[in-house]
Amino acid sequence: MILTVKKDANPTQLDGLMEWLKAQNVEVHISEGTYNCVLGLVGDTSHIDMDLISGLNIVENVQRVSEPFKNVNRKFHPADTIIDVCGHKIGGGNFQIIAGPCSVESEEQICTIAKDVKKNGANLLRGGAFKPRTSPYAFQGMRNEGLKLLLEAKKETGMPIVTEIMDLSHIDLFADVDIIQVGARNMQNFELLKELGHSKKPILLKRGLANTLQELLMSAEYIIAGGNENIILCERGIRTFETATRNTLDISAIPVLKEKSHLPVIVDPSHSGGIARLVRPLALAATAAGADGLIIEVHNDPAHALCDGPQSLTPDEFAEVVKSVNAVREVI
Amino acid sequence: MILTVKKDANPTQLDGLMEWLKAQNVEVHISEGTYNCVLGLVGDTSHIDMDLISGLNIVENVQRVSEPFKNVNRKFHPADTIIDVCGHKIGGGNFQIIAGPCSVESEEQICTIAKDVKKNGANLLRGGAFKPRTSPYAFQGMRNEGLKLLLEAKKETGMPIVTEIMDLSHIDLFADVDIIQVGARNMQNFELLKELGHSKKPILLKRGLANTLQELLMSAEYIIAGGNENIILCERGIRTFETATRNTLDISAIPVLKEKSHLPVIVDPSHSGGIARLVRPLALAATAAGADGLIIEVHNDPAHALCDGPQSLTPDEFAEVVKSVNAVREVI
Amino acid sequence: MILTVKKDANPTQLDGLMEWLKAQNVEVHISEGTYNCVLGLVGDTSHIDMDLISGLNIVENVQRVSEPFKNVNRKFHPADTIIDVCGHKIGGGNFQIIAGPCSVESEEQICTIAKDVKKNGANLLRGGAFKPRTSPYAFQGMRNEGLKLLLEAKKETGMPIVTEIMDLSHIDLFADVDIIQVGARNMQNFELLKELGHSKKPILLKRGLANTLQELLMSAEYIIAGGNENIILCERGIRTFETATRNTLDISAIPVLKEKSHLPVIVDPSHSGGIARLVRPLALAATAAGADGLIIEVHNDPAHALCDGPQSLTPDEFAEVVKSVNAVREVI
Amino acid sequence: MILTVKKDANPTQLDGLMEWLKAQNVEVHISEGTYNCVLGLVGDTSHIDMDLISGLNIVENVQRVSEPFKNVNRKFHPADTIIDVCGHKIGGGNFQIIAGPCSVESEEQICTIAKDVKKNGANLLRGGAFKPRTSPYAFQGMRNEGLKLLLEAKKETGMPIVTEIMDLSHIDLFADVDIIQVGARNMQNFELLKELGHSKKPILLKRGLANTLQELLMSAEYIIAGGNENIILCERGIRTFETATRNTLDISAIPVLKEKSHLPVIVDPSHSGGIARLVRPLALAATAAGADGLIIEVHNDPAHALCDGPQSLTPDEFAEVVKSVNAVREVI
Repeated sequence: MILTVKKDANPTQLDGLMEWLKAQNVEVHISEGTYNCVLGLVGDTSHIDMDLISGLNIVENVQRVSEPFKNVNRKFHPADTIIDVCGHKIGGGNFQIIAGPCSVESEEQICTIAKDVKKNGANLLRGGAFKPRTSPYAFQGMRNEGLKLLLEAKKETGMPIVTEIMDLSHIDLFADVDIIQVGARNMQNFELLKELGHSKKPILLKRGLANTLQELLMSAEYIIAGGNENIILCERGIRTFETATRNTLDISAIPVLKEKSHLPVIVDPSHSGGIARLVRPLALAATAAGADGLIIEVHNDPAHALCDGPQSLTPDEFAEVVKSVNAVREVI
Repeated sequence: MILTVKKDANPTQLDGLMEWLKAQNVEVHISEGTYNCVLGLVGDTSHIDMDLISGLNIVENVQRVSEPFKNVNRKFHPADTIIDVCGHKIGGGNFQIIAGPCSVESEEQICTIAKDVKKNGANLLRGGAFKPRTSPYAFQGMRNEGLKLLLEAKKETGMPIVTEIMDLSHIDLFADVDIIQVGARNMQNFELLKELGHSKKPILLKRGLANTLQELLMSAEYIIAGGNENIILCERGIRTFETATRNTLDISAIPVLKEKSHLPVIVDPSHSGGIARLVRPLALAATAAGADGLIIEVHNDPAHALCDGPQSLTPDEFAEVVKSVNAVREVI
Repeated sequence: MILTVKKDANPTQLDGLMEWLKAQNVEVHISEGTYNCVLGLVGDTSHIDMDLISGLNIVENVQRVSEPFKNVNRKFHPADTIIDVCGHKIGGGNFQIIAGPCSVESEEQICTIAKDVKKNGANLLRGGAFKPRTSPYAFQGMRNEGLKLLLEAKKETGMPIVTEIMDLSHIDLFADVDIIQVGARNMQNFELLKELGHSKKPILLKRGLANTLQELLMSAEYIIAGGNENIILCERGIRTFETATRNTLDISAIPVLKEKSHLPVIVDPSHSGGIARLVRPLALAATAAGADGLIIEVHNDPAHALCDGPQSLTPDEFAEVVKSVNAVREVI
Repeated sequence: MILTVKKDANPTQLDGLMEWLKAQNVEVHISEGTYNCVLGLVGDTSHIDMDLISGLNIVENVQRVSEPFKNVNRKFHPADTIIDVCGHKIGGGNFQIIAGPCSVESEEQICTIAKDVKKNGANLLRGGAFKPRTSPYAFQGMRNEGLKLLLEAKKETGMPIVTEIMDLSHIDLFADVDIIQVGARNMQNFELLKELGHSKKPILLKRGLANTLQELLMSAEYIIAGGNENIILCERGIRTFETATRNTLDISAIPVLKEKSHLPVIVDPSHSGGIARLVRPLALAATAAGADGLIIEVHNDPAHALCDGPQSLTPDEFAEVVKSVNAVREVI
């Protein structure tokens, strides 16, 4: 870590800083310049909060030389992590398509879709039981009941299921879920992340709407620090000034995350654009950019199932997307 | 709500949409144009999810005419909400300064600061017991123990206390806390918001780093929908492309929120800038823009208490800020 | 255009607004609601400035139903525009790769690279003569001299040349340039756009760092309104909160622009990421998402030509990227 | 400047980098770490382009220790710059209010407003002759004719005039203008900035919609590097994800710019919010935060002068704002 301290730094504050830094078990190398003084911290600085230091009046700026994440860092773990979900591998060259409806609505609905997507190339089933909704007046999901129906669909089709957890108090309800999804809004719900660190289940960690890739990796570090190494990172679009799409898919996140970390990276083309007709181009782009998988919304009846209609494909559209995705995978 | 539907809309999808809209108990007025068809929805549309509709292939765009929030909307409740915290009023022309350290570190620390800030013009005491930290390796706060020390400080000084909750499972620990703070990262932790809606305690709801003012009001709507009307909104800076400050204080949020809602609005000048020397100008700006209060970090020993040093003032700097803030309040 | 006017609108202001609206030659349909009044404007509203109206005290919000751009709008011109540059077609299924160095440095450099990239699959040559640089102390390009060297390279290789114009006063110097590039910083240099509208040369219009897709199309509308229909749109990354990459490539821009407009859309994977090792994945993603071409930086000597080294590929890396790009094109 | 180079850096590239760095006349100090190697550059690095280096494959990150701007840097010029415009001083404790209409429409209009705002406390007159408009179909200003009318108003009232230049080819037309404004969209029109550097006139440099404060200072550096030290910086709101206001006024920009530079900083509360009723709170906030002045839009007839109506005040509203602004100035 490199600190640039103001030339006119108050000596008492500077001494306080130096003292504190040494208490953090890091060596401090000082080099005086004409207009400022540079402190180089040598040792493990991962536990030092940059914001705390950068806020100090005497500090001009702070720069990390080594990343603050350790266990998810490819530098310390060069080999790709491969996650096995009931025999379906993700990462290390293994590509998986997760598909299903936005929300679970009925046994008939979820089972029909499950069979459809399985037939058309999906190996894992997604479906929302607990739904984070901006409005308290909007449908909040079937919750508990929805989880039961997902397990029904799993029994009927043999597909492992992926569904979102909204609070750590629900964790026992997720005992039979195969992959627990942490939604974008909970990416920095640290109490939840700690709890999931004590589980052994694969965690699908979605990037927050306005979180940097480093923050995403730090949230993964929370889970891995608890002992759970089964983490799948998911890019699902970030919030920018552009309003033509609901979110802006950060396609560069794929190569950057795979360079910095050994964890698998999948993409959600449905929520990124928020429009069904964008799912195909975004799914192809993500595949071409090196994603380890896709999580796509599919519903059975566009005309009537409006709740998950918008950004969802019909089974036929889905089949067509899978075909193109596989074609792209073969050439890259 | 105004929907613009594509001219070449697939009739089956359009019928499905019309059917679904009617099922939402809203009247639909249709007006055909040359290049598109406009649907005007009349009735209560607050429960309709715009994103769901805007994602439909046949929909060109959607625009709310009436806001999706009801109980926090000034239109339906013109008078300012005034919140009384142990006799200290916030809102409706009543201005309060909340001050204290970033983290509770020891009884001596919290009590010393409490007395200092009380003497210098703060009526409420803030202090972090549960700390949301980006890194799992950083100090996570004294948690339970910290809450006890805050109550000690309350007993010694008589100041009501404000502290952050990180998970709904902790709610019983907050029984004696006077104002429960929901941090920026939990602004859309809907399960937590629902739980707080069933409490009667004042809630200090901080705006998320990348949440719009409407989303902030929708989160407040979650709390009020549960029956708890004691909500204080807090602007604490948003995430933008600018890196010279930790966050960008959205000063316009104050007049906009006060125009749209009857809830009191306070500002956190400490986290907005992330630098102690910015607290004074930002506190004065917030006061001049019409804020109902401020929440400011103060610590007792800049040289040694680094953990809450950076964006914190010394008691003397704090006293000076309070003096200027009061001077500005008198002239506006 | 749909205007929502406040219920308590000052009648004089409302009359003024109505009067003004009628003066714009649009019909106004009024529908009164309980909490507001909705005005529907029918007719050509493309010349009406939304910002002006949305700023009015009596106006709650404004929404365009029809887009403000006309001549670049696919609705009014469904067929893809195909631009022919010395026999090389762009758009309408025709894909082109433009390659070359960031800056022209010497005749030997530009000619060597030109031959290299031509051999490896590029049909057009790019190279910077006038360089927009953030710092006045940084190399500003060879300017005039650089243009001459580009024309030399064209003579030697027969490749049409693409280079950036920085001010309309330079336009005569660009008489022999085949495609004039408008850089991101000049996307809203309206005086320059007007001037280029009177030219017949193909214009490569780059999206501004923080401009919406609609603003990009409005800038294209400036050029086409002047009579020049030869416009190529270019996505080159936008500014967001993410700092891991220099800019964030907005991959969704490709399908969205191609849906809204008939103009060809190309992508610059070099500037989007700002890192050479990101060029390949971003180029493949852009191709898979349906781009009509790519503009890629290539230099001849990574170890020494630092000025254009960073985000540039070596000729061999470039050859490899072209091979993969073509493979992806075949399968989609 | 601190470079962090990858541990596995290709030696040829590393040699190339070292060679190039030395050619920039900077000393390079190397310190090897376990996972990377840190290069410290000592000397004048202001001419080195960080982006170029950070893009290199072998470079992990780059951090400036000294700012890239020199002549506008307070470190090298501690005293406030005071700009004298016909006897009206700006900066160094001197506060000025610039007011006038968005666009010049007629002699009667501009002269009436000029007298009004002068009577109510403005010392300088603003008015748009050349108007940058997003749409080619919108009113582009009276241009030349508008400048003549502004000079008329100056003759009648004695107020110095401030108006925007859109292209360097117009510079002769601005011979009698007192302050030349560079609009947000031209903040990085470097050819224009160079030209203005050769003028002696005060330049009002507006921050670009998505430009960092450092980029604003670098643009000022372009002007000062040409020999013109009469620069007034202007914060006018930045583009963020928030849509409740047209732009987000970055209030922190005032203290940050004044700390980093000796140039005066004024604020435009009219364009920041884009809504007349926000002008008062934003003007007061800017004053309280330490701005050296304000530039406010005022028009004479809200009901009919719609073009500049939205974000403009009436003369009476303006008078009221000036009164409050002065009251705030007295107490801080």
